[in-house]
Amino acid sequence: MNKKAIILLSGGMDSAVVLAIAKDLGFDLYALHLNYGQRTQDAELNAFENLCKHYSVKEKLVVDINYLTQIGGSSLTDLKIQIPDAQINSQDIPNTYVPFRNANILAIATSWAEVIGAEALFIGANQIDSSGYPDTRDEFFKSYEKMIDLGTKPTTKIKIFTPIIQMTKKEIVEQGQKLNVPFELTWSCYRESEISCGTCDSCTLRLKGFKDAGFADPIPYKIK
Amino acid sequence: MNKKAIILLSGGMDSAVVLAIAKDLGFDLYALHLNYGQRTQDAELNAFENLCKHYSVKEKLVVDINYLTQIGGSSLTDLKIQIPDAQINSQDIPNTYVPFRNANILAIATSWAEVIGAEALFIGANQIDSSGYPDTRDEFFKSYEKMIDLGTKPTTKIKIFTPIIQMTKKEIVEQGQKLNVPFELTWSCYRESEISCGTCDSCTLRLKGFKDAGFADPIPYKIK
Repeated sequence: MNKKAIILLSGGMDSAVVLAIAKDLGFDLYALHLNYGQRTQDAELNAFENLCKHYSVKEKLVVDINYLTQIGGSSLTDLKIQIPDAQINSQDIPNTYVPFRNANILAIATSWAEVIGAEALFIGANQIDSSGYPDTRDEFFKSYEKMIDLGTKPTTKIKIFTPIIQMTKKEIVEQGQKLNVPFELTWSCYRESEISCGTCDSCTLRLKGFKDAGFADPIPYKIK
Repeated sequence: MNKKAIILLSGGMDSAVVLAIAKDLGFDLYALHLNYGQRTQDAELNAFENLCKHYSVKEKLVVDINYLTQIGGSSLTDLKIQIPDAQINSQDIPNTYVPFRNANILAIATSWAEVIGAEALFIGANQIDSSGYPDTRDEFFKSYEKMIDLGTKPTTKIKIFTPIIQMTKKEIVEQGQKLNVPFELTWSCYRESEISCGTCDSCTLRLKGFKDAGFADPIPYKIK
């Protein structure tokens, strides 16, 4: 029997590549998706479903954590705060930061892992071409893994895998191409829209990644 | 201006005593309650509301995390698993353990704390007269605090307070009496019921605590 891995699958290009990596490593795939009242919830869920079908995941878990909207404090979850255009070289943490989101998501994944006996959590966090969020850093995940070990049953052993944390977007695109990731099924834009805006942080980073890797991004954009 | 504290307020006697301790320390009180599809959800929410009124908390946040029911794995959230009678001296982790619940709850509390600028999280975890859950131990909370520090903005400083973690139930009752905690407003029973059963782990520990402290528990029981 293969080992079980839970993959945090937002539906973006990073998590799609991570899903492909986990499959390539021989894990049985369990995919977790979170609706947290973010602006692009439907587009992300749609991407999640299509990726799960493509990769024949064993089990899907979609959970609603609308409390992040109740709590607010981020332009991704509070419609009164405007999504800024990209400021990639700024040292400030942008207002798209959803306070402590990854810790919430990992807690849910760990609860599920303990129940189904999964040994691995895969998360597509990225420290290089990211927006400087504190909960996407390597030290954070190392510390989280220790905390899991202390907070679960003695028989539970769970490792957090962050296979793309040190990759540039260019390298993520290249890795995805190598593993035949269906990028046309993914969704990355932060702004609510039928078509990706091409100008928010997330679109800007994605487009730059494809350009640097020398591939065409297969999804349509308003402005490219 | 007073410092802000978020109190994890289930509505049980332990969290009520912790609320009183936070107030006694001079914090402004922000109370967080979780509905997670537990059997006694209504009784607990009712106790929470009454305690918030009694202590004039500044703000309340009630969030639904039904995903713990979706995930299951515990007799508290899965109605197919029966609640056992108390086995206080057993070394096994009982089936009332909700996998990684405290880590989920603390993640929500930390998100809220970061948005409102709270510096303290109070949780009524208890290591002594508890049921042996891994996520109620001191080492777990110390590790969690470190993880928070790494996963939040550099300006965010949050401390976890576990003021009753080393107390026996007897001492918790005594502390509550000293601070005039309205124990008649609290709810502790694990079993779904109008009146507390008096025989589950939680009732058994509570009744023993009152007996050892030499006080009468003001709430009614089916079997005492």
